[in-house]
Amino acid sequence: MRRRLKSGRYDPAQTTLHMLPAQAHLCEVGPRDGFQFEKTSIPTEVKVETITALVEAGVQRVQATSFVHPRWVPQMADAEQVLAALPRREGVVYSALALNAKGVERAAAAGVTHIDLSIATNETHARDNTNMGVEDAVREAEAMIRLAYDAGMQVQLGFQTVWGYSRAGDTPLDFIAALARRFNHAGLESLSLADSTGLANPLSIRQRVEAVQKAAPGVPLVLHLHDTRGAGLANVVAALECGVTRFDTSLGGLGGCPFIPGATGNIATEDTAFLLEGMGVQTGIDVAAVGRATRQVASFLGRALPGKLYKL
Amino acid sequence: MRRRLKSGRYDPAQTTLHMLPAQAHLCEVGPRDGFQFEKTSIPTEVKVETITALVEAGVQRVQATSFVHPRWVPQMADAEQVLAALPRREGVVYSALALNAKGVERAAAAGVTHIDLSIATNETHARDNTNMGVEDAVREAEAMIRLAYDAGMQVQLGFQTVWGYSRAGDTPLDFIAALARRFNHAGLESLSLADSTGLANPLSIRQRVEAVQKAAPGVPLVLHLHDTRGAGLANVVAALECGVTRFDTSLGGLGGCPFIPGATGNIATEDTAFLLEGMGVQTGIDVAAVGRATRQVASFLGRALPGKLYKL
Repeated sequence: MRRRLKSGRYDPAQTTLHMLPAQAHLCEVGPRDGFQFEKTSIPTEVKVETITALVEAGVQRVQATSFVHPRWVPQMADAEQVLAALPRREGVVYSALALNAKGVERAAAAGVTHIDLSIATNETHARDNTNMGVEDAVREAEAMIRLAYDAGMQVQLGFQTVWGYSRAGDTPLDFIAALARRFNHAGLESLSLADSTGLANPLSIRQRVEAVQKAAPGVPLVLHLHDTRGAGLANVVAALECGVTRFDTSLGGLGGCPFIPGATGNIATEDTAFLLEGMGVQTGIDVAAVGRATRQVASFLGRALPGKLYKL
Repeated sequence: MRRRLKSGRYDPAQTTLHMLPAQAHLCEVGPRDGFQFEKTSIPTEVKVETITALVEAGVQRVQATSFVHPRWVPQMADAEQVLAALPRREGVVYSALALNAKGVERAAAAGVTHIDLSIATNETHARDNTNMGVEDAVREAEAMIRLAYDAGMQVQLGFQTVWGYSRAGDTPLDFIAALARRFNHAGLESLSLADSTGLANPLSIRQRVEAVQKAAPGVPLVLHLHDTRGAGLANVVAALECGVTRFDTSLGGLGGCPFIPGATGNIATEDTAFLLEGMGVQTGIDVAAVGRATRQVASFLGRALPGKLYKL
């Protein structure tokens, strides 16, 4: 593939205009995506202290827990207790993940205002992890969205493995675009695109984000990036240039999923905020304060986390 | 700082055109920047095996060692032996670093064809590490360049801490540009700009690279990026967009400098090559083969390295 044209002129397909937004919003997912598969049992009070410290550091949205069956994810068995103990702050949103109707009902009963739902987009991934194919998963998500609306909740819908599952691009772009189109008028608060296995690069970020923006122009996008191959922050910059201003991050780059090989770590909250602030993109986040929260968590877990800044 | 214009029009100062080159060239610096400060003594044969594996993986330039006094860097005491034992391959360049005239003489005697010289650009950094200020260091570099030319060597000159020493931007941009101008007609094979402490971001990369390109249009640029704060690969992409096609990388992200607080790890060779190849920028590097070499080194050193891909 040649990107440079012999004539020296710009190929519109390979060029774009850089423009950075004035502000970006980070949603902290460490308490869910990070904590969920830790082998050490994390007491409710440690979760609450961590989330409180993040909110005091300026984080305005936290995916605080998930309503999943405790048999599958014992670490999240205290979802109701965590939510009940969190400090209520003006302008701060606590969301929770649910993977089925029962989870949506529990979330509604717990007073959750913002529910995060998520669907597989790759057939192999869907069949590896559930007994359903993607079309069944989409129908189930549609039913869950109705249930959430009936309970008065706002919904963020997430597409998993948008940039691929086991190989870059093995989830077809046309299918992602068609799926986005299907949810364009669903009244979603936001649509989250996940690079679950860290297979995206700045070029494919631009390609897929622009395709989804075209297919679902009415829905704000969130990017959920894993740093599995080190390209996480490069992908943040590419997404900013496409007009995306919402990103999921986790303190210290906690995260990963044992059901997706190599799905290690989200992009780190403090590293992302430092980069953005350094480019004049305001996040409202006190990087040093997030670093302190990360050091507490790393100390509790007894191991180094993937994030960079908290070690300096 | 507001980056988005109210009118929705593009501000040329905040925008640029993306364009990726067809090819990029990675110079492996792990055997020097990576090995030099390892506490474990690394036998000459391990160094030679590592470099040989990298060359067989397609790396075409390796900074193989440095000619520094063994009292300061005992790990590099075998510089002559390493160079003598390396396999000679068509199209493969082995360079070596020298920090003073004695080092240049030793390199010449060892048959080095490409010498890497390096100067501090930040007064505090210069005085922290040597008894000289920057101007004295520049004069000494000019003398070393003459010495190297007399010995028939090609010279890569490196500017340290171009993006800052202890804070982003604390090395003045005007000074960097003036220094580049001073060496524009010095006959350099290349000019290396180092983000020694990982303080650059894509915006400052563009700003400083473009300033140097304007000041020294006759000299090919090399970027030497550390991943101290996780922005290394984002900075690679920004530099590619500025037309830079040469990058220093180290296998597994080895590297760091005990004299610069927080100067941990270069960008990882295999992670950089994977990212570039995924965007259609050819490197000629077999990513999996570099990963195998990294696993050997990590196993020899008995610890995990910062690189991501070799762990998958």
